[in-house]
Amino acid sequence: MEKLIIGVDLGGTNIAAALVKNDGSIVEKISNPTEANKGKDMVITNLMATIEELLGYVEDNKKIKGIGIGIPGVCDIEKGLVKFAPNLFWENVEIVKILESKFNLPVFIDNDANAAALGEVWCGAGKGKKNIVCITLGTGVGCGIILNGAIFHGAGNGAGELGHITVKEDGPKCNCGNNGCLEVLVAAPAIAKMGKEALLKGDTLLKTITDREKLTAKDVFDAAKKGDKVCLDIIGNVANNLGLAIANVINILNPEMIIIGGGVAAAGDILFNPLKEVVAKRALKDLYKDVEIVSAQLGNNAGIIGAAALVK
Amino acid sequence: MEKLIIGVDLGGTNIAAALVKNDGSIVEKISNPTEANKGKDMVITNLMATIEELLGYVEDNKKIKGIGIGIPGVCDIEKGLVKFAPNLFWENVEIVKILESKFNLPVFIDNDANAAALGEVWCGAGKGKKNIVCITLGTGVGCGIILNGAIFHGAGNGAGELGHITVKEDGPKCNCGNNGCLEVLVAAPAIAKMGKEALLKGDTLLKTITDREKLTAKDVFDAAKKGDKVCLDIIGNVANNLGLAIANVINILNPEMIIIGGGVAAAGDILFNPLKEVVAKRALKDLYKDVEIVSAQLGNNAGIIGAAALVK
Repeated sequence: MEKLIIGVDLGGTNIAAALVKNDGSIVEKISNPTEANKGKDMVITNLMATIEELLGYVEDNKKIKGIGIGIPGVCDIEKGLVKFAPNLFWENVEIVKILESKFNLPVFIDNDANAAALGEVWCGAGKGKKNIVCITLGTGVGCGIILNGAIFHGAGNGAGELGHITVKEDGPKCNCGNNGCLEVLVAAPAIAKMGKEALLKGDTLLKTITDREKLTAKDVFDAAKKGDKVCLDIIGNVANNLGLAIANVINILNPEMIIIGGGVAAAGDILFNPLKEVVAKRALKDLYKDVEIVSAQLGNNAGIIGAAALVK
Repeated sequence: MEKLIIGVDLGGTNIAAALVKNDGSIVEKISNPTEANKGKDMVITNLMATIEELLGYVEDNKKIKGIGIGIPGVCDIEKGLVKFAPNLFWENVEIVKILESKFNLPVFIDNDANAAALGEVWCGAGKGKKNIVCITLGTGVGCGIILNGAIFHGAGNGAGELGHITVKEDGPKCNCGNNGCLEVLVAAPAIAKMGKEALLKGDTLLKTITDREKLTAKDVFDAAKKGDKVCLDIIGNVANNLGLAIANVINILNPEMIIIGGGVAAAGDILFNPLKEVVAKRALKDLYKDVEIVSAQLGNNAGIIGAAALVK
């Protein structure tokens, strides 16, 4: 009898969860509100109810191999502890212990970016690869690192803070206190901000957008795809900064593959083509030939499948 | 009976080798010229003669556990192959096979920077640590990475090229083809070059040096220690660029320790103090608190002891 895995993507807004097969395919998927604004305990209650709901689809809990949860925060994997997850208002929550005693099933947690990286090598773009770096470009910059086939956590479960490497010494201030972090240069809000500034100054298709405040990174990419010079320049700028960071990662880690996902990566070739040019120029030739730079494949299910991969 | 290890530091000028005990202490140390200018085969002959000479100190080869060799180049560890070592004029030399059939002892090779890092966690500054980055600042920038207690090689044995990460986007041209690599900003030749330029321009203690061409990085550090403002500025510049690179490594790998060795590191506090300030500013606070930044401890024996560590 093939056992199923419960994969849970515990987000600040929604708890998405699914029964996942051993090949990474999804059998049954559900989603409930996280209600993080109602506090730490309500999130735990909603998480338990979501797992309970999924268990209703199997006759017997013995058909479940385990529960994997991707956490939007810092985890102590060995202790099964969520040290800090600001969007959930969690601090030092022993979630593994709580859920294991409730469901009598093995529970595994990890940071959501790490889980997504593991999902991609399990059944996504990096299937079968041993050394990859998976970057998620959205509201922030997430990063999971797989080395020698396993998630690399670092000394204090803090590895993979790629969003905070310095790319522009005197660049814009970041929330972390540093200047010129990758995140303030290439994440979606940074791209939207550049679009808003361009709209005020120049001749760009963005000027058809009446509510300037609602301009998004996607608007910038859409205009660039129509040949808008100003937006193409913004993307060139993003590709340059992201390419510099990725080349540095390649020179340090010599990975087989860089996987890029998230809303910004959905832009496709218009971002990937100039990005690859920058990386080719900046990474050592011998290391650049070892590496592929590709789009993530798991899309919206990356969180769930990655969480399930923690159990596998 | 405690077995001894033969550790060999195969340099472009000299072959330094020793009988090493299980605690990393050196029993007998010798050195012979490499004679790399006489070609690949002469280097192999001299390497064999050096090992033979050390074996003369033990009654029986059975007292030797194995032979470890630090290689100044790129190795394929699994195949026991030196892929490329420009200073030795070696390309695709199956050195492990050659030496094992000659001496009937197990032979291990690795890149010399990797070996040095392993030596430091065996019995140097990083004793007992599991996640460290060891940086050697000399004519170039070497780097060995220990993750989860083992040398991290990357997908193609090319990990740790820290000397070629981009620190200054529009910085000076590097031999690798990129601009603003760490190596062209902080290695000894870069510091000497800044000293020479300063000497021409300003009021500095360096002007007592009559032969400008012979000015070294050490002259710059010596003048700075005497309070020379111009040289202190040069060191501030080096600390800034090195600190930026190290902060990036910390943000990516979350190591327990950064170990810095080589001639430039011998400068001591005058470099380490401003360096630590830069890293504290640029690395994420949570990761900076996990990490110590320290001097390498094995000094001139780092190569030999590191090579011996490959056997251990």
